[in-house]
Amino acid sequence: MTPAFGARLAAAMADLGPLCVGIDPHASLLAAWGLPDDPEGLRRFALTTVEAVAGAVPAIKPQAAFFERHGSAGVAVLEETIAAGRAAGLLVVVDAKRGDIGSTMDAYADAFLRDGSPLAGDAVTLSPYLGFGSLSPAVRLAGRTGRGLFVLALTSNPEGAAVQHARAADGTPVAVSVARAAAALNATEIRLTGAPLGSVGLVVGATVGDAAARLGLDLAAVRGPLLAPGVGAQGAGAAELEAVFGDARAAVLAASSRGVLTAGPDPAALRAAALRARDEAAVALR
Amino acid sequence: MTPAFGARLAAAMADLGPLCVGIDPHASLLAAWGLPDDPEGLRRFALTTVEAVAGAVPAIKPQAAFFERHGSAGVAVLEETIAAGRAAGLLVVVDAKRGDIGSTMDAYADAFLRDGSPLAGDAVTLSPYLGFGSLSPAVRLAGRTGRGLFVLALTSNPEGAAVQHARAADGTPVAVSVARAAAALNATEIRLTGAPLGSVGLVVGATVGDAAARLGLDLAAVRGPLLAPGVGAQGAGAAELEAVFGDARAAVLAASSRGVLTAGPDPAALRAAALRARDEAAVALR
Repeated sequence: MTPAFGARLAAAMADLGPLCVGIDPHASLLAAWGLPDDPEGLRRFALTTVEAVAGAVPAIKPQAAFFERHGSAGVAVLEETIAAGRAAGLLVVVDAKRGDIGSTMDAYADAFLRDGSPLAGDAVTLSPYLGFGSLSPAVRLAGRTGRGLFVLALTSNPEGAAVQHARAADGTPVAVSVARAAAALNATEIRLTGAPLGSVGLVVGATVGDAAARLGLDLAAVRGPLLAPGVGAQGAGAAELEAVFGDARAAVLAASSRGVLTAGPDPAALRAAALRARDEAAVALR
Repeated sequence: MTPAFGARLAAAMADLGPLCVGIDPHASLLAAWGLPDDPEGLRRFALTTVEAVAGAVPAIKPQAAFFERHGSAGVAVLEETIAAGRAAGLLVVVDAKRGDIGSTMDAYADAFLRDGSPLAGDAVTLSPYLGFGSLSPAVRLAGRTGRGLFVLALTSNPEGAAVQHARAADGTPVAVSVARAAAALNATEIRLTGAPLGSVGLVVGATVGDAAARLGLDLAAVRGPLLAPGVGAQGAGAAELEAVFGDARAAVLAASSRGVLTAGPDPAALRAAALRARDEAAVALR
């Protein structure tokens, strides 16, 4: 049986540091790499990136939207990217931000978390507007197949506050109730398996500033991986990361895409940029 | 130039009534139709449904999750279903519940709302966990291409309340702020075009009961289409629909899937079930 995602990610981060390279084949990046904005350009972009960063970082995160722009042919490239990443020993987080209810959520779980599904990587991102509880088919299937989830919790875009900072009748902010639901699942998993990290992660922007503290978001209690855009370089430095993540810094998987991808198309330059971003993230998160 | 989605939908509903047939090819429905749970089974299911209901109802709503279960081959069937629906004169709402920020949201807009994209129907469903404002690339592109949006607002699954009923610091519930943002966009569109209905719709569960009133959700002010699962049959009757939608009942597009699809695979039986569901919805919404 495949070990659980949290345990696999913790081991990979101990080996290779805290970076997840986002594979975001924007039209502008394709052009900068001299590639056409079509499925074949997408394919060369994604596979070049996979090959360049394998062994340098623990994880990649292909962004579904940039593949769906090219329709089913683009989705076929996403499948190929997932397979190539896994074959190269990378953990693959499919950034799809899916979320629905009932049998529809079952179907999304099936698509992104079932053994043998061509769209299943090692983890998938989910969106909880329909309530964290509506995601339970994904929680269950991920548990059975050793896969992981990253549920949107608190993001740094200004529009997010209207939803994520809103409070339930008992005063609990939405982002906090998402984090508590993940914490409860991870506590059970950790109790049963002794894993260092549970498999229900969150997406938390590194540049949310004092919002985490103001809302009372206790990320150390989550005990799951925290996928964080905005670490290092133009993003959050050590002090801000300490303020947002506190003792959960060791669980942060920094997501970086442009910072790495603009170094391409030369594979050696891509790999060097990934190593640099990884080491910068490690220092900032120390 | 294509007229705006709101205007096209209002005209189609005036002709054919308030029903949108959900195309949800569950494994169990495929089995009940004697079809294999593979892309070819999916294809026969979806195309049979399109052909059977064309001319009987104004719209169909293929649910992306059931196609993504079959990977890129399933997504190719979704593309074929969208094309067949539009060719048959149906309005096609792609139920994908996408939502992201920045250039990723641009890419989703491109996938589902751009002329010539194989995944673009007439409208797409979106999820606003990252804030309604984060969806603006879709609002802009939909405006330019005469397409529409249905943004998740208030749903009837019990887990949804934890997010949708939560209140901002000024006391506004999340579902209400989503509705107000849609209302503002529709007011502008209606002022500029004189259309009877704007193109920024909402998803509102017909069986939310008194939640709409308790939260102060003013659906009549939205002036956009309201995609509503749970109208009629086992769902909400006339009294409950009046309580939830009030004067916005004329803007309700009832979504029905199982109630119609279980009548298949015989096309005549499917069409009869769609007509019956349509007429029941029309009576209940009167």
